[in-house]
Amino acid sequence: MTLDLYGFWRSLATFRVRIALNLKGVDYREHRVDIFSGEQYDPSFRAINPMAAVPALVEHGQPPLTQSMAILEYLEEVYPDPPLLPASPRARAHVRALAMIPACDAHPLLVPRVRAYLSDVLVLDEPSRMAWLEHWSLTALAALEQHLAAVPGPFCAGASPTIADICLAAHMAGARLSKFDTSAFPACNRIVDHCMQLDAFAQAHPLKQPGAPVQG
Amino acid sequence: MTLDLYGFWRSLATFRVRIALNLKGVDYREHRVDIFSGEQYDPSFRAINPMAAVPALVEHGQPPLTQSMAILEYLEEVYPDPPLLPASPRARAHVRALAMIPACDAHPLLVPRVRAYLSDVLVLDEPSRMAWLEHWSLTALAALEQHLAAVPGPFCAGASPTIADICLAAHMAGARLSKFDTSAFPACNRIVDHCMQLDAFAQAHPLKQPGAPVQG
Repeated sequence: MTLDLYGFWRSLATFRVRIALNLKGVDYREHRVDIFSGEQYDPSFRAINPMAAVPALVEHGQPPLTQSMAILEYLEEVYPDPPLLPASPRARAHVRALAMIPACDAHPLLVPRVRAYLSDVLVLDEPSRMAWLEHWSLTALAALEQHLAAVPGPFCAGASPTIADICLAAHMAGARLSKFDTSAFPACNRIVDHCMQLDAFAQAHPLKQPGAPVQG
Repeated sequence: MTLDLYGFWRSLATFRVRIALNLKGVDYREHRVDIFSGEQYDPSFRAINPMAAVPALVEHGQPPLTQSMAILEYLEEVYPDPPLLPASPRARAHVRALAMIPACDAHPLLVPRVRAYLSDVLVLDEPSRMAWLEHWSLTALAALEQHLAAVPGPFCAGASPTIADICLAAHMAGARLSKFDTSAFPACNRIVDHCMQLDAFAQAHPLKQPGAPVQG
């Protein structure tokens, strides 16, 4: 059965779900919801997801699955092979905690609704808004670097990608799209560069999606 | 074996973990880390959790478990009874998504490090800072209310508390401590009031912890 993913090229949370679907070989088609132009508020999309948010994952005739981290756990439970979490509870907790540093500590500070508040309510100028985004983007990478600096392998934990790699890759993609200087985080960059050599990651990248700006 | 929980009375993330430990009947002792006075940065606590964050849950001789949502999943895997997630993957995804609305969409915008940025870097005055906190607190409750308004039972999903109730109760406790007007969210209030009648929730409440201000 083909799943319907509602997403947008610039949505890093959609990027996470796309990677997981690719890694697990799940058949899906993506429907573009242009959150830059406010399409998520259209009645046609609200009929699919009343919360007006991407990503939303729809299985035939079922209510939409929302919240990218909950979707990743769902995919792990329904499509267990290949696993995106280790086997032991302690190792799973470690991977989940690593995933949540960018996905829960940082990403919620960088999303469109917060950017809108900074510009519309706080009336911050462009440099102040960019400083906010850079600060929280790099704070998460600094925390991750502390965890990952001593990791010997190609991924965050173990010999295959986990949800920690997915969330790190999405976060790093955002930082790079914003042209923030991430050179102080060599372990993060090394792991992300390794991930991005995998088709499942590379094909899911924001700039590979319809609607993304063409790279010169 | 007694677990060691490092937390603070005002930490809503610690409140979440405390509820789960109580519901599952896990033996633990709590160690206070006064994040208002910066104790999380003391070398003695950094030796326990280098990330200088609460909550951290330590099992004898093991590295600390961090990130409250990852800790909840860990407790669910290691102490499955009573369950804090439903049985079916779709129902689990729904409960996790509900939990993440307050815990991941809103809470990261309300934590001390963000409050410090608002006052120290953006130099916002007190009314602007309070407006920020109120806006994001109530935005999450509005989203939850949309999901919960038609729920017939006493909890967010099903006949027993789940991680969705835990995260809602913690979020509401924060909103009430800040004296925000939550009257527009009757379903959220009804569910939280029901939860708070349970000892596992009531005994975990911030104001019941050592160091909390005495209620007049």
